Amino acid sequence: MDHVPPHPAGRPLVIERVAELRAHLDAARAQARTVGFVPTMGAFHEGHRSLMRAARGQHDLVVVSLFVNPLQFGPTEDLARYPRDLEGDLAVAAAEDVGVVFAPPVEEMYPGFPAPPLTTVAIAGLTDGLCGSARPGHFDGVATVVTKLFSVVGPSTAYFGKKDAQQLAVVRRLAADLCLPVKIVGCPLVREADGLAMSSRNRNLSPAQREAATVIHRGLRAGAELVAEGGERDAGRLRRVVANVLTTEELVRLEYAEVVAADTLAPLDVLDGDVLVAVAARVGDVRLIDNMTIHIDAEGAVVDLGVAVAPTEEGLCAAR
Amino acid sequence: MDHVPPHPAGRPLVIERVAELRAHLDAARAQARTVGFVPTMGAFHEGHRSLMRAARGQHDLVVVSLFVNPLQFGPTEDLARYPRDLEGDLAVAAAEDVGVVFAPPVEEMYPGFPAPPLTTVAIAGLTDGLCGSARPGHFDGVATVVTKLFSVVGPSTAYFGKKDAQQLAVVRRLAADLCLPVKIVGCPLVREADGLAMSSRNRNLSPAQREAATVIHRGLRAGAELVAEGGERDAGRLRRVVANVLTTEELVRLEYAEVVAADTLAPLDVLDGDVLVAVAARVGDVRLIDNMTIHIDAEGAVVDLGVAVAPTEEGLCAAR
Repeated sequence: MDHVPPHPAGRPLVIERVAELRAHLDAARAQARTVGFVPTMGAFHEGHRSLMRAARGQHDLVVVSLFVNPLQFGPTEDLARYPRDLEGDLAVAAAEDVGVVFAPPVEEMYPGFPAPPLTTVAIAGLTDGLCGSARPGHFDGVATVVTKLFSVVGPSTAYFGKKDAQQLAVVRRLAADLCLPVKIVGCPLVREADGLAMSSRNRNLSPAQREAATVIHRGLRAGAELVAEGGERDAGRLRRVVANVLTTEELVRLEYAEVVAADTLAPLDVLDGDVLVAVAARVGDVRLIDNMTIHIDAEGAVVDLGVAVAPTEEGLCAAR
Repeated sequence: MDHVPPHPAGRPLVIERVAELRAHLDAARAQARTVGFVPTMGAFHEGHRSLMRAARGQHDLVVVSLFVNPLQFGPTEDLARYPRDLEGDLAVAAAEDVGVVFAPPVEEMYPGFPAPPLTTVAIAGLTDGLCGSARPGHFDGVATVVTKLFSVVGPSTAYFGKKDAQQLAVVRRLAADLCLPVKIVGCPLVREADGLAMSSRNRNLSPAQREAATVIHRGLRAGAELVAEGGERDAGRLRRVVANVLTTEELVRLEYAEVVAADTLAPLDVLDGDVLVAVAARVGDVRLIDNMTIHIDAEGAVVDLGVAVAPTEEGLCAAR
């Protein structure tokens, strides 16, 4: 499908250098082809595939970046253990008709690494709570790499999963505040058939941990029922119900369960408008996050827990 | 000369809104016209004109932004007193064949102002010394607005005066670190016939202060002679000579005289390579800056004090 410049059909062009990527994409744009962009850290699962499909449905050329960004990992975090699977990822990208995979070495993104780059982008307010408290500097690292990737790729649209709800809010704000000429699209959170939110980090769970981790989804579901069927409108009680379910699994250590406004991430007392219920928990030394959004108005409550892959399908997810 | 979309010949199109500017420039780029950009705070002098001419010489369409950026002024600084002259500026822009003047209201750049924007761009290291010490937050304000203006304008090239040497270093670094697809060009510092560096703030000097302010240039010249003719290679002695000259004028209060590496702005002991000699001084309540660069190698020293307008000419400067 892509032929500017030509590359073997069905296999994405893999580019490691900023200058080469820019030249390739400038040439594509000069032929009026639009670029949809999916920034990732690799180790693709159905969530990533759903982003690629959304991009492919709306653009001539899909660019996927594959970069485990050291700037967004704290010194005690799992940078070294973060799953990497370039060959598997390229096969997935090929199957999803991705045109270009941008896989820069770390020095290409941060010359002089491990010295930190002098220029950083920071988002105040939105990054104080939720994962921002536990991961100081994380969202500045995200904001910096995303700004840079947007500069390099120059996409019309960029696709992010709603599983990283705080990241999505940060990126939306970043794009608006800096007037970046890119549309940000949030795609549904994708779950395994048993409810566990898809995450590259799930690969690092043992079978017992993997089983225990489903309690996160059960906690959210209990909260969803309380609001949608029980009519609960008190944020504190919702929070406690979700948190209580998560404490029933010995292998799972709750880090936070919060109820906030979906756009500003400000803590809520009363459930109204677009509400984000966000959870982080540790299972062994793997940190998992999950969330749901609830739209609440006079008519009632509509819960969005994302979509689940059909257990029998060959990997198709319901995200489109 | 510009005709996409048409506007009265000789008068720049004045645009106040980001969306309108973007649509106009997208249309121009779609016709393969390149955009040269001159970001300014208005109150144009020959320095600004030299930037516009440099841009006009290299691009089909010149965009000048005219925005007194509140983010780069501290609470006790001269935001309210900063000179403003829209009509005069438009006449200058017309004379310099500028295609578009982007003059956004403050709320267009910072929705919710005076609340600060949540997203900011910061440059570490380069902004600690020189004006950064006296003006905390100043360069973050510069970096944030420049990133935003680059996003909105999407220029191929942006032109900055070397008078703001630290700003130029910051912008170069910003563009490199964030991979912004724009070339940064530094244009020669422009001086009045008596040597005073051109500055919009010169308008706020009384005649006696204006006369006294020429001591800044005399200080730099004394330093230049010491190095170029006296063979001085000790940064401390150079610094003291420059500073001593500036203390001879009662109306002028030296803020700093520093000798640093031109690219990293790191303080120097020995003069070698590209050296920046930068000065800041207060004359009454007007803060003025000035500088020169000296390239030093085994062959000797080449001083760049900028260019002076010819005293008899109708405003042409030697910057091209």
